Amino acid sequence: MGNEEQDELPLIFIQRLPQFNLPPIFTSRLQTLFRLIDPASQSHSHSEESLSVVRALLCLDPAPLHSQTLDLLPSLQCVVATSSGVDHIDLAECRRRRIAVANAGPAFAADVAEYAVALLIDVLRRLSASHRYVRAGLWPLNGDYSLGSKLSGKRVGIVGLGYIGSEVAKRLQAFGCSISYLSRKKKAHVPFLIMQMLAISKMTVTFSLFVVLTNETYHLINKDVMTALGKKGVIINIARGAVVDEKELVQFLVQGHIGGAGLDVFENEPDVPKELFELDNVVLSPHKAVATPESLESLLEVNIANLEAFFSNKPLLSPIDLE
Amino acid sequence: MGNEEQDELPLIFIQRLPQFNLPPIFTSRLQTLFRLIDPASQSHSHSEESLSVVRALLCLDPAPLHSQTLDLLPSLQCVVATSSGVDHIDLAECRRRRIAVANAGPAFAADVAEYAVALLIDVLRRLSASHRYVRAGLWPLNGDYSLGSKLSGKRVGIVGLGYIGSEVAKRLQAFGCSISYLSRKKKAHVPFLIMQMLAISKMTVTFSLFVVLTNETYHLINKDVMTALGKKGVIINIARGAVVDEKELVQFLVQGHIGGAGLDVFENEPDVPKELFELDNVVLSPHKAVATPESLESLLEVNIANLEAFFSNKPLLSPIDLE
Repeated sequence: MGNEEQDELPLIFIQRLPQFNLPPIFTSRLQTLFRLIDPASQSHSHSEESLSVVRALLCLDPAPLHSQTLDLLPSLQCVVATSSGVDHIDLAECRRRRIAVANAGPAFAADVAEYAVALLIDVLRRLSASHRYVRAGLWPLNGDYSLGSKLSGKRVGIVGLGYIGSEVAKRLQAFGCSISYLSRKKKAHVPFLIMQMLAISKMTVTFSLFVVLTNETYHLINKDVMTALGKKGVIINIARGAVVDEKELVQFLVQGHIGGAGLDVFENEPDVPKELFELDNVVLSPHKAVATPESLESLLEVNIANLEAFFSNKPLLSPIDLE
Repeated sequence: MGNEEQDELPLIFIQRLPQFNLPPIFTSRLQTLFRLIDPASQSHSHSEESLSVVRALLCLDPAPLHSQTLDLLPSLQCVVATSSGVDHIDLAECRRRRIAVANAGPAFAADVAEYAVALLIDVLRRLSASHRYVRAGLWPLNGDYSLGSKLSGKRVGIVGLGYIGSEVAKRLQAFGCSISYLSRKKKAHVPFLIMQMLAISKMTVTFSLFVVLTNETYHLINKDVMTALGKKGVIINIARGAVVDEKELVQFLVQGHIGGAGLDVFENEPDVPKELFELDNVVLSPHKAVATPESLESLLEVNIANLEAFFSNKPLLSPIDLE
């Protein structure tokens, strides 16, 4: 492509931490469509002038996006995030400045949903724990491993019935599970029961979280919810660590007041409470529910679709509701 | 119940290993419907005469049932097994003596199916392996765990589309998977593709086994099948260990010629090939896919339904085809 044609491509500001590079497939594809301003790159240079006219920004999770950066970009109108969660972006400030925000939308939904289902079955059926039992050579010595509990046919609660929660619900229906959900608004056309938090906790044996972390959802799963969930209840968290009061959860698990947990996210990643390491009813995963080679390609498509929609004055594909 | 009424209840011979007792819920429920002859019990006594008239036998997995026992029971007409697999029962001898055999039928199907799905996602997404990574304290030291591979939308092969295979297929459809299957007969009314072994191995990325172990299915999954399956292929075995040529599988896994394996069963249980212990693409489980408290109750119902059908001259609920 000649310099002249290049100059006509829209500008995109890349907000990232220096240690998190754009995946190579992103860079090469994005460069065919946009001119990239990447201040975190050592080899990159850009003019003050280009910053003053840039209208769209791609924000790589987990790089924060706060007013200092927004102040540099007076023409910014659109932020596209590479993640489902957008708690690293100052949404209040974006709303104030009338900057639209789009997240990863449906890009990861199937990847995260299948991982959530596996975590749930793993906790209930003690799959990881029985694998450790075999690896430790205990099967010939101690005989049968203890029974787990069945998922199929059980009542499952889903907190947040967005892209991901809906994909989980669809899968669990095929396991004969009946689904109750908690959401800000009742969803049309779903055969599931909307319920309040404590009601859902009392009625369901398992409980999966797919909400975006905001001030409203911080420690949404607190002591009262865990008490209502009780000894047969299992919490699956693949949203954000701080949606659950982690200290309380550790206490409930250590004291056996809750049935188990499958956790892909934690309040202070990569630190995981060590008390959980020895519990056979807990499955710990290093924040990787979204991560497959397939989801990366899918993410690239959703990010590009949002950016192209913005530059064509069309509605964003997966806008975040900032109201 | 008076002795007289008791005497009118049909006799059931219990075939079991001394170390495997009938679960208490079985004993109490069965005793309301049948008189039990339990030679493995130390406290039990029975007459030669009762053996000569007993018409039905309950065979507790893994107790073998061969001609020595059948010789003791000249009036035997029906064997009801507590397992899906019936390789511990001499089926040829049963056929010769015109003894009908029923297995656990649908009792475990949902339990096994959900376990198989979890094994499959675990292997593809490296769930157990990433859990070990967290427990070993490696997350803060080494950063992100490597990507797994997505299940949703992939092509899955199922060997044996009986009770269990059908339940697995139903669940995987909700993951957007397309299903190919191998079976002795084409199934009516299923939206799945019937294929030959090598064709199915070449076309699918994962491969799950739910066949009964017989002379025909011994080492059904051999070197040729594994070669066709290739480096992206994953084998899930929750049927019987000997359906797979285990020595070959270990070689394929150790040399990286196959993508991974999720194994609930092994050729010489409880011995598991130690070469598999250190592989992160292998999930090992101690033959527990069927085992939940719920499945035990369900099994009791199926066993009783078969016995009652036999004594009422009705067709068995879950007969094994002995032809």
